[in-house]
Amino acid sequence: MIDAPPVGTTMRALVKEAAAPGAAIREVPVPQPVAGELLVRVEAASVCGTDVHIERWDPWAQENFGPPPMTFGHEMAGTVVARGAGATRIALGALVAAETHWVDWTCYQCRTGRANVCQHMRIMGVHVPGSFAQYVIIPEVNAWVSEGLAPEIAALQEPLGNAVFAAFVEEVAGQTAVVTGCGPIGLMSIAVLKIAGARSVFATDINPERMAMAEQMGADLVLDARDDVVGRLRAETDGNGVDIVLEMSGSSAALHQGLAAVTNGGRVSLLGTHSVPATIDLSQEVIFKGIRIYGITGRRLWDTWYRTTALLEEGLDLTPIISHRLPLADYAQAFDLVASGHAGKIVLLPQEEQ
Amino acid sequence: MIDAPPVGTTMRALVKEAAAPGAAIREVPVPQPVAGELLVRVEAASVCGTDVHIERWDPWAQENFGPPPMTFGHEMAGTVVARGAGATRIALGALVAAETHWVDWTCYQCRTGRANVCQHMRIMGVHVPGSFAQYVIIPEVNAWVSEGLAPEIAALQEPLGNAVFAAFVEEVAGQTAVVTGCGPIGLMSIAVLKIAGARSVFATDINPERMAMAEQMGADLVLDARDDVVGRLRAETDGNGVDIVLEMSGSSAALHQGLAAVTNGGRVSLLGTHSVPATIDLSQEVIFKGIRIYGITGRRLWDTWYRTTALLEEGLDLTPIISHRLPLADYAQAFDLVASGHAGKIVLLPQEEQ
Amino acid sequence: MIDAPPVGTTMRALVKEAAAPGAAIREVPVPQPVAGELLVRVEAASVCGTDVHIERWDPWAQENFGPPPMTFGHEMAGTVVARGAGATRIALGALVAAETHWVDWTCYQCRTGRANVCQHMRIMGVHVPGSFAQYVIIPEVNAWVSEGLAPEIAALQEPLGNAVFAAFVEEVAGQTAVVTGCGPIGLMSIAVLKIAGARSVFATDINPERMAMAEQMGADLVLDARDDVVGRLRAETDGNGVDIVLEMSGSSAALHQGLAAVTNGGRVSLLGTHSVPATIDLSQEVIFKGIRIYGITGRRLWDTWYRTTALLEEGLDLTPIISHRLPLADYAQAFDLVASGHAGKIVLLPQEEQ
Amino acid sequence: MIDAPPVGTTMRALVKEAAAPGAAIREVPVPQPVAGELLVRVEAASVCGTDVHIERWDPWAQENFGPPPMTFGHEMAGTVVARGAGATRIALGALVAAETHWVDWTCYQCRTGRANVCQHMRIMGVHVPGSFAQYVIIPEVNAWVSEGLAPEIAALQEPLGNAVFAAFVEEVAGQTAVVTGCGPIGLMSIAVLKIAGARSVFATDINPERMAMAEQMGADLVLDARDDVVGRLRAETDGNGVDIVLEMSGSSAALHQGLAAVTNGGRVSLLGTHSVPATIDLSQEVIFKGIRIYGITGRRLWDTWYRTTALLEEGLDLTPIISHRLPLADYAQAFDLVASGHAGKIVLLPQEEQ
Repeated sequence: MIDAPPVGTTMRALVKEAAAPGAAIREVPVPQPVAGELLVRVEAASVCGTDVHIERWDPWAQENFGPPPMTFGHEMAGTVVARGAGATRIALGALVAAETHWVDWTCYQCRTGRANVCQHMRIMGVHVPGSFAQYVIIPEVNAWVSEGLAPEIAALQEPLGNAVFAAFVEEVAGQTAVVTGCGPIGLMSIAVLKIAGARSVFATDINPERMAMAEQMGADLVLDARDDVVGRLRAETDGNGVDIVLEMSGSSAALHQGLAAVTNGGRVSLLGTHSVPATIDLSQEVIFKGIRIYGITGRRLWDTWYRTTALLEEGLDLTPIISHRLPLADYAQAFDLVASGHAGKIVLLPQEEQ
Repeated sequence: MIDAPPVGTTMRALVKEAAAPGAAIREVPVPQPVAGELLVRVEAASVCGTDVHIERWDPWAQENFGPPPMTFGHEMAGTVVARGAGATRIALGALVAAETHWVDWTCYQCRTGRANVCQHMRIMGVHVPGSFAQYVIIPEVNAWVSEGLAPEIAALQEPLGNAVFAAFVEEVAGQTAVVTGCGPIGLMSIAVLKIAGARSVFATDINPERMAMAEQMGADLVLDARDDVVGRLRAETDGNGVDIVLEMSGSSAALHQGLAAVTNGGRVSLLGTHSVPATIDLSQEVIFKGIRIYGITGRRLWDTWYRTTALLEEGLDLTPIISHRLPLADYAQAFDLVASGHAGKIVLLPQEEQ
Repeated sequence: MIDAPPVGTTMRALVKEAAAPGAAIREVPVPQPVAGELLVRVEAASVCGTDVHIERWDPWAQENFGPPPMTFGHEMAGTVVARGAGATRIALGALVAAETHWVDWTCYQCRTGRANVCQHMRIMGVHVPGSFAQYVIIPEVNAWVSEGLAPEIAALQEPLGNAVFAAFVEEVAGQTAVVTGCGPIGLMSIAVLKIAGARSVFATDINPERMAMAEQMGADLVLDARDDVVGRLRAETDGNGVDIVLEMSGSSAALHQGLAAVTNGGRVSLLGTHSVPATIDLSQEVIFKGIRIYGITGRRLWDTWYRTTALLEEGLDLTPIISHRLPLADYAQAFDLVASGHAGKIVLLPQEEQ
Repeated sequence: MIDAPPVGTTMRALVKEAAAPGAAIREVPVPQPVAGELLVRVEAASVCGTDVHIERWDPWAQENFGPPPMTFGHEMAGTVVARGAGATRIALGALVAAETHWVDWTCYQCRTGRANVCQHMRIMGVHVPGSFAQYVIIPEVNAWVSEGLAPEIAALQEPLGNAVFAAFVEEVAGQTAVVTGCGPIGLMSIAVLKIAGARSVFATDINPERMAMAEQMGADLVLDARDDVVGRLRAETDGNGVDIVLEMSGSSAALHQGLAAVTNGGRVSLLGTHSVPATIDLSQEVIFKGIRIYGITGRRLWDTWYRTTALLEEGLDLTPIISHRLPLADYAQAFDLVASGHAGKIVLLPQEEQ
């Protein structure tokens, strides 16, 4: 059993100090869990593109983060070291990952099975202190027991859940699919589709490193998005087009390829966020094709988590996606790597001394 | 029993004679049904916006119609007066309406319950001769027996089916809904939502005549689309937004109002066709809201038709939508009325002498 | 605002005093709400068949109730008069009804949208003290704000929710349906099916009073269950059989009629509880017909409650079902009436002096 | 290209000659395809339990078969050698399998996506001449092009489709499942569940040979049905019970085990036909558990066939199930083996001389 740090202890944390680019490792007090909360020692904290937006202080971050000063980071796994009053479901010492969306459980959405779009959602590391730190507070209800997983894999369940949600809004087995965009979630979704029995999984990107990883994750065919993707996908599917499009790039060009490649009456999951509006010929690309488009955000609570755990148990292997494991102090290198596109997933290790 | 006209008889038909604006009533031979076909005496043929596009010869018509010379018109009901070989299911003398999409029944879509997006669809009055004529040929498989209905109502089952399909892609009872655009299909969908137990049905338009008809069809609240539709709909739904959006206008402004008004995790049916591409902030309007968007075209074969028949039996009343009943010879007046927006649904009567 | 009774006050309650038939009105202490709980002044408490089982002390009650001494009763509505720590969502003075299933919110079922079959469910009035009393404790999470409803109608939302759940497991609009068994929930489901746009609603029973009430609730045709129900339903549905069967009787004979009357590929909701096992020819009655059978218990949390509220707002009228309104002291008369079948729904009024 | 036999040619066929036990190889005329039909040279014809019932002339056969004299057999694949008028979709020389249910395509079920429960279904080898013969007639619409498959595997698509249909009525990936009964379809469904990403696949039987085959097909755990199946399945699923039950045995004991083992709110597919009625405690086994039961017969046209083809393409291997390949003349041995339970699937080869 790992003991909780004594009251008054400080810890290292990566803090966004002001409403400006940058961040810094600081010594801050270890937080104390109140009723219903857990104090978790962070064993692994992987880097999401969102974290880079926050560090760079882009318009999205300016609008959503904080207020500073606040620790950021959200994909994580760690050990429960203290529990607030009433938090008795999860044992001290358990390895947990965080559902990073803190929802109110009482709004219309939360009470009708759609907590992922809660009207009053707060996101760990965006609106409340995050996990790029030695310790973090998580509401017990947001902690997912992950015994038996390596912490770095447990931390990846959060983005893996995005992929699982996007893939499983409808059936997968025996269907053809294309994943447009092979960033980490795109790569994960390739593996998800394969383990769920998709007939063929195609993938597109323009980054050769990511294209190579897509093959490694099991894609049957990886296409350069600058080539004739639509023609090739039609050819590979008896002219029918693909049944499933998982749009993971946030690129308008990829979106149009997906809409052109999807079979009439097929379905499209949109997960990659678009920084600029897309121009869509709704009549030709959506209406006359009779397709269904799903906006995907977060994870279904908790169907997605059960499913995610199950797939990992079945052997879904995320290890090939992890390109770097770095001490927290190397956060700047990590963010540069993510921004450059020359990385898979980077895991920061807050307990490791530099 | 109405006898078939003797072989060699001619009939009046509204013919698109050339690839240019205009159309003309001509005497043409009554067609003869071949194997699997019915010859139907047209009792009522209602006017769709598509017909006006064909007459006006807009870009869509230039790309899709014909080739001329060909009779157009597709919403219809009539009496079976002759049957080709093997067409024995439907009795001579029966009143039938036409499913206007002639599908191949063998493509991937047709064989998986999505014939409405058949890969080789031909549309009556667009690709094959239509029903603005005293007689028309219909494949028996496309004829929907409509005994007990007035011919003008039977003819309206085709656009009503669009409304039914759009409304019933998911459950309706107890849900709040907004119909954006009160053309004939929008008006029909108001009645469909009401009879199916929607909690509240809102409607928007900018045309006062249509707004008045929307109230007549049962809308609980009709809003001028130039007002603060989103604010009003939020206020009317405890701040949640509406569960269902039926976009029936093809207007980009209406689409954005619908996307802003729909509750997180709600659903949007797109049916109104857009003549220009729409610019959509996918992240804010679709992804982070976790909504589902359905492209709607045609009718589900034949679930929609069974449902449509049932609703008419239950008392759904389309009569208030029919603003004019005119002899076929008055087609020009009819098209002008439709184009002006000062009409509900106009029914042409090919059997009526001027 | 109604004040909470001073600490130490007693109240009248209907108490099951021992593991034997009978019950008695007793003066017992008003309970005090602890964290997360509400103290509710009971304005209306309707009688369910379960309450009669408890009073009569039948085998089900012997196995499930208690232990005695304990107050029973569960269908209720009342005014919030005190709140335990943290129970701040619902205002003092609000009218609330109770979701009577107290679930653990953490089991596999509760975390995957199926709290109605929680693995550790406790039922108010069966496992914890009930609402045949002047005051009752309800967890705030189980309280459904019901402003604007008459208390007697608010109390009926709990069984109405059963009907709503049973009816809406699949679509209703435009479908034919039969309700087998016209007890209170059967009667409610007739109204639910009608308001949701069912094409035809048939009902069966053998009790003439209930058959009359079924007509009053809107059934299109009410059949004596001893007649040729199956033949008649086939005849009324063009030989196809009905799309929907709601089995509300718990009678094996009714079940077989429903299975025979349902159309191939149709669906059957089972809600009426069977005191003895049923003998079913699975091959002929289920497998070769390709039907779906749904076991229905409780209400979906909280989709069913939202839907139930919506239907009441739309005008679903339960008043005709309420045959008696009695002071709590007349419980024995109420139970006898329910047992006799000569009552619709009986509402007990705990605040009313005899 | 294989030529059609000259008109007047005879062929060997296994004929049920009279309404009594037995069957005999006879020389009968090669049938001629009429409009819409194909003449198919039978390359492989596998034996179904139904065929044994027909040969043994059990009560089911007495009620359903014929009338004699008629050829039986239905699971088949073969080469198209002649085509009736209008049958132009499938090329001469193509390898096809048969959807053995000949449906009317016009009844309520056929027109609403449920042709597998057509009201006027005829089954090849039961109501019309079957495929235990050198040639057989198939409506072109019932022929499924199976190029690239071995004929013996192509023939097995028909029972494989049963397994696919039963498994895929709801999602499979990440779910736990038990298959009760390891006859050929049960064995196939194990492989189907595994390839579709089930979390764990359990199987039960009492026949050691079948239990061994279940392991070979990929079951994670095979249990003797006489042991404490329910306790073991609960233990293997964290006490929750299994998500999916595929009842493939037709045994009442297995059914009760499945109903006891399924998790609250889970789902059960019934496919094994029951020769005697089952006695079910509906309240405890179905209603209070909130489960869904699906009667499964035939295959969904044509979703199931597309899916089945896809799974075979993905690598689902049925070869281990085929225990014997015999010339048609050895039919008696084949039927005895099937009846004894000491066989997997037996393929008869009508083109092979003994």
